[in-house]
Amino acid sequence: MYTLHIANKNYSSWSLRPWLLLRERNIAFSEQLTPFSSDARHPTSELYRHFSPSGRVPCLIDGGATVWDSLAIVEYLAERHPGVWPVDGTARAWARCVCAEMHSGFSALRTLHTMNCGLRVRVAERPPALVADIARIEDIWNEGLARFGGPFLAGAEFSAADAFFAPVAFRFQTYGVIIAAPAEDYLRRLMALPGMRAWEAAALVEPWRIPSHENDALRTGELHADLRTHVTAA
Amino acid sequence: MYTLHIANKNYSSWSLRPWLLLRERNIAFSEQLTPFSSDARHPTSELYRHFSPSGRVPCLIDGGATVWDSLAIVEYLAERHPGVWPVDGTARAWARCVCAEMHSGFSALRTLHTMNCGLRVRVAERPPALVADIARIEDIWNEGLARFGGPFLAGAEFSAADAFFAPVAFRFQTYGVIIAAPAEDYLRRLMALPGMRAWEAAALVEPWRIPSHENDALRTGELHADLRTHVTAA
Repeated sequence: MYTLHIANKNYSSWSLRPWLLLRERNIAFSEQLTPFSSDARHPTSELYRHFSPSGRVPCLIDGGATVWDSLAIVEYLAERHPGVWPVDGTARAWARCVCAEMHSGFSALRTLHTMNCGLRVRVAERPPALVADIARIEDIWNEGLARFGGPFLAGAEFSAADAFFAPVAFRFQTYGVIIAAPAEDYLRRLMALPGMRAWEAAALVEPWRIPSHENDALRTGELHADLRTHVTAA
Repeated sequence: MYTLHIANKNYSSWSLRPWLLLRERNIAFSEQLTPFSSDARHPTSELYRHFSPSGRVPCLIDGGATVWDSLAIVEYLAERHPGVWPVDGTARAWARCVCAEMHSGFSALRTLHTMNCGLRVRVAERPPALVADIARIEDIWNEGLARFGGPFLAGAEFSAADAFFAPVAFRFQTYGVIIAAPAEDYLRRLMALPGMRAWEAAALVEPWRIPSHENDALRTGELHADLRTHVTAA
């Protein structure tokens, strides 16, 4: 059975991708969560290097094999399990394009709308680069739904493409990003997936608050709700 | 036959990856180079959107199919041509891990040692994040060479892993990054590949100078050579 190393569910957008893929494709795995370090003397990369060569998560362990990086994990799983990518060649090529684009791009979204599942933040104004990132995501979603017929991004079944855009759904929820149908309907479907519900529920009860991650979110706008239920010391 | 859209050879590290892969794997293609825009009224993304949905290069055209993003292009080619990834499953998984890690990471190297093939820049001091990126690349190279026997990163043949680290070779040359053997020997082999020689030769005769790219390089240290042969207006 696979072991998937992940970080905090409230914060780790990269961890969510393969976790959700495994879960929605019904591939058995055990989860190993190592929280981000908030101790500068022991940085996160140092903790993670014990199991992940890059010092980052996610990292998949399959017996003697160590597979790090969310996109490499996807391709590793795709060689072993049906449905990770669409069967149709055109849909598969498209799905890989949008995953690879997400993997290396969208730096404004990544920096300015960091994942923090439990928070709700009011954003007064978005810089052009962020507006462009959001518009590009809407375009990608609408294109996939139109070309491959939905209800998922690359056709009838949940694939790695959906898993790769799942963190975006939490970002949009936290920062109140408004998009139009049909992309909006897709967003709702994504949020309703059992895996997404389970991830969010777990994120909300986590006890850890990492100052740098909290500050990234609070810098973005005005906090109007914190849905996390674990009471922390001030 | 494939058409590969690329940008300036002097600057575009992302373009180099699939170009070198096609070339070193002897896969026929025609190259379509569209220089970066230096006119703010017509940004590069607007020019590129005519052929690439993301507004970015590289972008591969295969008849009616458009495949953008260097890593998605690699997987598209891997489904159609032998040798893009290693045949051995362990080497293949490893090669995908290091490519995906390069695709989404190494932001200090990307930002502080931008590709500019023709320049030679003396760097007085490197911030810790950049030193860590360089050390990680050395580790990856040494690990690959040791595990899979060389002379290439993932074994006896040139694969996508080598293509993905090829831009690093030009960066190291430009900014005088010193690494130790065996990684150093690998760097020399990479630079000696016919495809790398041809790319560099073409980069050196390009007439375009994009101020933002030039400034990125000059900000990094003291310029001591510009090997580009095209005389430009001051």
